[in-house]
Order: sequence, then structure tokens, then C-alpha cells
Amino acid sequence: MAKRVYVVGLGPGDQKYFTAQARAALEDAQVLCGYTVYVDLVSGLFPDKETYATPMRREIDRCRWALETAEGGKTVALVCSGDAGVYGMAGPVLQLAPQFPEVDVEVIPGVTSALSGGALLGAPIGHDFCVISLSDLLTPWEVIENRLRRAAQGDFSVVLYNPASHKRADYLQKACDILLDAGVSPNTVCGCVRNTGRPGEESRILTLAELRDTHLDMFSTVFIGSSTTQADHGRMITPRGYEKKQNL
Amino acid sequence: MAKRVYVVGLGPGDQKYFTAQARAALEDAQVLCGYTVYVDLVSGLFPDKETYATPMRREIDRCRWALETAEGGKTVALVCSGDAGVYGMAGPVLQLAPQFPEVDVEVIPGVTSALSGGALLGAPIGHDFCVISLSDLLTPWEVIENRLRRAAQGDFSVVLYNPASHKRADYLQKACDILLDAGVSPNTVCGCVRNTGRPGEESRILTLAELRDTHLDMFSTVFIGSSTTQADHGRMITPRGYEKKQNL
Repeated sequence: MAKRVYVVGLGPGDQKYFTAQARAALEDAQVLCGYTVYVDLVSGLFPDKETYATPMRREIDRCRWALETAEGGKTVALVCSGDAGVYGMAGPVLQLAPQFPEVDVEVIPGVTSALSGGALLGAPIGHDFCVISLSDLLTPWEVIENRLRRAAQGDFSVVLYNPASHKRADYLQKACDILLDAGVSPNTVCGCVRNTGRPGEESRILTLAELRDTHLDMFSTVFIGSSTTQADHGRMITPRGYEKKQNL
Repeated sequence: MAKRVYVVGLGPGDQKYFTAQARAALEDAQVLCGYTVYVDLVSGLFPDKETYATPMRREIDRCRWALETAEGGKTVALVCSGDAGVYGMAGPVLQLAPQFPEVDVEVIPGVTSALSGGALLGAPIGHDFCVISLSDLLTPWEVIENRLRRAAQGDFSVVLYNPASHKRADYLQKACDILLDAGVSPNTVCGCVRNTGRPGEESRILTLAELRDTHLDMFSTVFIGSSTTQADHGRMITPRGYEKKQNL
């Protein structure tokens, strides 16, 4: 019998973002596990399945539990918001997996916030972009600062994950100051989305100078345009190139 | 009556990657349009719907046709591979949309190659990353070169879209040389995926030095690790941080 863990990216938090593949993995699994909020999202669809929910900080325990449970003979779906790989559980599960050589791990991708939030704003990452997390829980701040500076020097569009939390109330302001200091124009078109795919979904477009003085929460994702990004009739659009060859 | 264009990201090319939202938009539409290959993918599911397929280079015509057809009263789904926004059609449709003020444009995100290819390899973009296209059709090569150099200086994981074509046979080699010149180790863990979600799907892990001398085609996506990326039991994994606080 196959011993299997699916690591499933669910998208931003509404069933409409589930892929057919994600749904099939949830159906195939005997046990659904993950952070409490996401287990609640899927257990409503499959009320008869066994569940195992853990608080946010117990991620490695959750990965180990999933592998142990699969080794014991049950197919497990470990669910993540967004994509399974982007700051997700696929990495730690695969790092632990060699300790469970009989267990097959299948990673199932999902719609990460850069895509779902981008769709709400328009097309902010229509050309080359970077994704950077402002959380310094596992990453030294100097690494984050250097990445912000290099992203600015490369004229990338930038998507910021984890732009703020209670303990990091001023991190977004610090990040904006690094970009401004690296020469990004204060008039650069930026966007914020909040609660994508959930009650209270909202998005807005603003300048980098305005973004610097904006207070966000941990349910937000931030988009900072490149030099070519435009605000056009309420949409944030980064053209797919230096469109001289196209007649729009 | 609502006059609407859905710009729909289908994922890499198999129905299993469709989101529920994408499928609902295809069902709601009266006309399915896009590049021939993707129209063929969806028209098989909805054989009774009107279709309009155009060759690859006629993208702006296709966007305009979609908006004109919606203005005429038909709901249109303009389909793209991967995500609707990432090098996709959402940008040009939204740039043209102000010429069609009665038409509502809804962007529907999808699983882009960085996510679907990443899942095949393991978790190559588990931490901060850049996405860069090597196509210089719409972007000067100097811009691409600068972005590669800044990505290297920022120690990002890098995903390369459009790594090669007939006309750009040596671009991947040039890109690898730029990264090596910027100080990226030739032993950096890299990955290639090809035909994700399609017949002939394949993936492999190799070093940056090996990647430099590899010939790929336009159906490939390339992943170049950061300094922390590991090859572990056949998987490419970028840990979610400088994991000192985690006990794996």
C-alpha cells in the first residue's frame, strides 16, 4: 500500500482557488492536517475525515506528525495557504522525508498571494518580479535589506509577503525607506491587498511615498511597481516589456 | 446585461491545474479565445462554445478582439497558460480596456510555471525569489543582464522563464555566465523542468556549471538556487530561512 503525504497549496482562503489536483488530493487523503484555520477550511468539505490541527508556530511538529502518520499507513494531506512551496510546508516536509524512506511525498502547487493579490489589483507582476518576505523570524534583517536594495537596483516589481505584524509594526516603513534610498521614485505605483478571497477582501493603489506611511496587518500583501508600472483607471499594470514593438 | 471579459490563467497545461474559479469562468463564457494550443485545451471540455484562436504573435489583436466581442454582448474568456498576469494577457487587456468603458474585465489567477515546476522539483522557491524572462523580444538585453546580476548579488533563488528558443540558443549560457561572473558558485544547486503537466513531463537537478552547458527548449523552466539551496534525495529544496531556530 502506498504511504503518502500530499503537501497541498490551497490558495488564499476560498474554495474557488482550489485546483482540481488539490481537491483530488484532499479526497484521496484519510487525514487532513495543518494550521487550524486551513484545516477548518477543508474539514467543512470533508466532515467525515480525521483532522489534526496545530497552532501556527508548531510547523515542524506538524510536518513530522504527517510523515509519521503516513508511515503508519494513512494517507495524509498537509494543507498550506497559498502555494505549498512558497514560504510553505513543502520544504520542511522534504527535509524531514529522508527519515521516513517508505513515505512518498507529493507537492501540489497552489495560487500564491503574489498571483491572487495581483489579479485583484490588475497585472502588477506582468514582467520580471521579486518576492521578498519581511519576516525576520528565520532570516537576518541584513539579508532582507540587501535583497530589497538589489531588487531596487534591478528595477524589479517587488511583492512583499508578511509586510507587518504586531512585533514588526515599522518594518514596511523601513523597507520603503531602503527602496527610496536606493533610488526608487516616491511616485512609484504601489498596491496593497488584504484578506484576498476572504470576507473583508480589499485592494487599493497608492504611491510608494503613501505606502511608507501606511499601517498594514499580517493579512496584507504589498506590491511595489517597477519604473514602468502604471496606474490606469483603478488598475495597477506592469507592461510585459518596453512595449515599443506593440501598438496598443 | 453584463459585458465581460475573463482573463483566465489555466496553469501549465492540464485540467488538473485549473482552479474552480477558472472552470466557472469558462462555463460562464459564451466565447473562448486565446492562443491556439490553449483554446484546444479548453474547447474539448466545452465543445459547444464558440472559439477564436490566434497564432502566438497576434496577442494584441486577440486582446482587442476579446474586448470588442464583449462590447457586442457576448461574455468572453481569454485563456492564458500559467497565470493570467505573469507575462500573461491581463496587462495588455487592461491597457486596452479604457477604450471599452462598458466592458468589465475580471482577472482569474492560475498556477504559474514557477509554482508547478517548483512542485515537481521539490521546494526550490521556499524562500525569497526572482522571476526573470530571458526573452528580449520586448525587453532590452541590458535590462535582463542587470536583473540577473542584481538577483545574484541579493542571493535570491531565480526562476528563468523563456530560457531558450531557436533564435536565442545561447541565452541560457549567457545568463549562467553573468551569474557566475557575479560570484554565484558553480556548485549552486539548479533544476530544469520541461513539459510540466503535459506528455513528456520531466525534471532534473544539476549544478550551475552543468546548467551552463545544457541545451533547453522553449517548453522548459529553469530554477537556480540561492546559496542555501540543497539537493536532498533527488529533491531541490530552498529552506525557509537560515533555519537556526528550527530543529529538523
